[in-house]
Amino acid sequence: MWGITLEPNSAVSLARQIFLGFQERIITGQLQAGEPLPSTRALCKELGVSRNTVCEAYDMLLTEGFLISRQGAPTRVAQGLTIRRVEQKNLPAQATPDHPPVAWDFRTGQPDLSLFPWQQWSHALRSAADTLSVQELGYRSPKGYAPLCAELADWLLRRRGMAVDPADVFITAGATQALHLLVDLLRRDGRAFAIETPSHPGIHTMLLDKGYPIHPMPVDGQGADSSSLEGTTISAAYVTPSHQFPLGGILPASRRAELLRLAKEGGFLIMEDDYDSEFRYAGAPVSPIYCMDPSHVAYVGTFSKTLFPALRLGFVVLPKAFHNQFLHLRTYLDVQSPILEQAALAEFLRTRKMDRHVQHMRRAYGERRDVLLRSIERAFGPSARCWGDASGLHVALQVAGMEFGEAFITASRNAGIRVNPLWKYCGLEYGHRDKLLLGYAHLTPDQIEPGVAALRRVIEECAT
Amino acid sequence: MWGITLEPNSAVSLARQIFLGFQERIITGQLQAGEPLPSTRALCKELGVSRNTVCEAYDMLLTEGFLISRQGAPTRVAQGLTIRRVEQKNLPAQATPDHPPVAWDFRTGQPDLSLFPWQQWSHALRSAADTLSVQELGYRSPKGYAPLCAELADWLLRRRGMAVDPADVFITAGATQALHLLVDLLRRDGRAFAIETPSHPGIHTMLLDKGYPIHPMPVDGQGADSSSLEGTTISAAYVTPSHQFPLGGILPASRRAELLRLAKEGGFLIMEDDYDSEFRYAGAPVSPIYCMDPSHVAYVGTFSKTLFPALRLGFVVLPKAFHNQFLHLRTYLDVQSPILEQAALAEFLRTRKMDRHVQHMRRAYGERRDVLLRSIERAFGPSARCWGDASGLHVALQVAGMEFGEAFITASRNAGIRVNPLWKYCGLEYGHRDKLLLGYAHLTPDQIEPGVAALRRVIEECAT
Repeated sequence: MWGITLEPNSAVSLARQIFLGFQERIITGQLQAGEPLPSTRALCKELGVSRNTVCEAYDMLLTEGFLISRQGAPTRVAQGLTIRRVEQKNLPAQATPDHPPVAWDFRTGQPDLSLFPWQQWSHALRSAADTLSVQELGYRSPKGYAPLCAELADWLLRRRGMAVDPADVFITAGATQALHLLVDLLRRDGRAFAIETPSHPGIHTMLLDKGYPIHPMPVDGQGADSSSLEGTTISAAYVTPSHQFPLGGILPASRRAELLRLAKEGGFLIMEDDYDSEFRYAGAPVSPIYCMDPSHVAYVGTFSKTLFPALRLGFVVLPKAFHNQFLHLRTYLDVQSPILEQAALAEFLRTRKMDRHVQHMRRAYGERRDVLLRSIERAFGPSARCWGDASGLHVALQVAGMEFGEAFITASRNAGIRVNPLWKYCGLEYGHRDKLLLGYAHLTPDQIEPGVAALRRVIEECAT
Repeated sequence: MWGITLEPNSAVSLARQIFLGFQERIITGQLQAGEPLPSTRALCKELGVSRNTVCEAYDMLLTEGFLISRQGAPTRVAQGLTIRRVEQKNLPAQATPDHPPVAWDFRTGQPDLSLFPWQQWSHALRSAADTLSVQELGYRSPKGYAPLCAELADWLLRRRGMAVDPADVFITAGATQALHLLVDLLRRDGRAFAIETPSHPGIHTMLLDKGYPIHPMPVDGQGADSSSLEGTTISAAYVTPSHQFPLGGILPASRRAELLRLAKEGGFLIMEDDYDSEFRYAGAPVSPIYCMDPSHVAYVGTFSKTLFPALRLGFVVLPKAFHNQFLHLRTYLDVQSPILEQAALAEFLRTRKMDRHVQHMRRAYGERRDVLLRSIERAFGPSARCWGDASGLHVALQVAGMEFGEAFITASRNAGIRVNPLWKYCGLEYGHRDKLLLGYAHLTPDQIEPGVAALRRVIEECAT
């Protein structure tokens, strides 16, 4: 009776099961307004539970106003509780076309996580957990854990030659969040953001989503060409000067100085994204624009490539005039980054384990890069040229006379190859139809050579 | 000569020190375009370093385009590199008025972190670290760690009587981020967000910052009054029905049904924030609106109060029609939450340590609540009334005939009491001038009684 069935072994208490049973019947209209409920005495007998249990359930129903009780009268169902429920529709499952499994995965931006020194990182976590005070578990500054800001300033000095005041360092949930906060911070009504084209799809999509206008800067083998900014007023300019994504150019000092001059005259900041410059294999290290003049640069870095992506730690170095507004935005976005990882990273930097890890990975990735370049040379000979091979985790492969259009995409997928044509990062109107992006850092040397050979076979098929 | 001084014990390599020295001189114009640099042979003698070191520095300068070298000619400074630097001004330090230290801190929303079972949490972290696969360290789903979504669905069933599909659970960086994502997700051009007034200042500030219009819903002792929504079109309605913040009312079932009817007719979602309902001390547990009809509710929860704020983990349970757009927004906001804490929380829930911890804290906070209510009774007698004392971490104290204006704020500060008048959460035009918010969960019983007595003295002073 009452259609209530109890499950004695459920994690839900018996009283709550009774509550839920009546609630359901009231909402669906099976129990109408004004209808009396059975007495607690009757119901407890019927359901075979204690009277306390039934009283508890009735109390819940009274507290939430599903029932009304008046002195002397039986407890009745309250008014106006019937709800017409709408069945939730499952979204149609996305049709997943029938592809063979991926045998050669040339995705970009993937560090080799199998080489991550998890033992050492665990040690840093434990050591951080032992060090943190109770106060640090509460709401703290949205700026970031102070010892981490200090260690990061040291790291930037020894690795990138940057003289950074720890007060200017703000910890973020990766570079993505840093950029998200920066575009909100720097937006000026009606003024576009200048971004490299092609560039990482993240910044482009973020600006489109927010409805902020975009001013595309063309990119050549040396990086962004900012000459079109002369005389325009923009919100900010986004560049990757140490290793342009995706073409790999290093922005020459004269173009950097030019961009800085434009930033000063136009009163805008340069958003400098230094996403993978830790991994440099050939030539001298490249220093950030920040070193030339920190007053007009917001320098963004990440630990997704050097440590691991699911860590979600990055940072921005920011001129002082923007500090307060940045803190405000972060507070109302997500308050702060989790404290434990921040403390662990501070420890990892302090003990120089970070330096040794990056050194180790640079060697490993450098070997893979050499294997890739040799494999490309062997497979394609002089018809291929690699862009941006001096650093990072990927190269752009240009094959003379090729067009990597939809036919190629289908053919490569059918051959079990995961690879992106470069025009996917800028749209067809910007050219670069003859280039592919090859991420290699996550591939072992003995995966790279057959992968490139498989790629060559697909390219040959498509060319004929 | 050349003004370059080297520090042999620096973390910066000698080559980079030489590079930075020349870079500085070129940027500031001390070295002009076209000027020849000394030969590597001459410079290495002069600085007392190896020739390799100097060659490395020159390579860096060449790579970055600070120098140009032509066959046979000496290396010279490139064109157009002089930058006029602007001195960064420090912001004027905010004037901090000369207050006595805070002796009685009645801030709201502060759990007692000294009772947090850090040992058990560390154990969960270690166990999570041992369990996670290498793949989990990479970029994963913005939805959240699947085992955590499943454990959370179980938790919501046993604690809140909610029947939740784990596919509908999305992990976020606390409730703040969940709300931030939701308002972007649910915004319809020109349509306001209905929010309780007074409410938590977070949601109000967030909407103001984004320029989204606000429709204020008045609040009484039972919670939000949504009658003004009849016939309007809004983007969404934000409510705290289980324990209204800050007034503490429990929204009766009839008003819940009314709000659901409006949501269906108006085609909007209810953003249900269940921020502290784990801690209920009197009366029956209150179940979320979600239980009445999940199809029009986005249910938001947090672990900031039950575990600790700097953990930054919360979640939203979302109808399926909104899943894809939510994933898109999260991807371009900060990709995902850190994996380790997610795995640790899954473990903490799975082993029921979470249940025991919440039970333990509920007892501790319940004792403090009793002490607070008794202290208020003793100090104020019948002139005081407490709102929302059945659950949560704070009460609203109403003192008949009082006005907690600026004079009171100054007097309480001078008496070493940190306490907020309720009108600070809604503005003076909404009344509530006779109420204060008292957070008590973070205070030990022997702090509460003298704190309330001190508060009474200040109130008496201000009343006369």
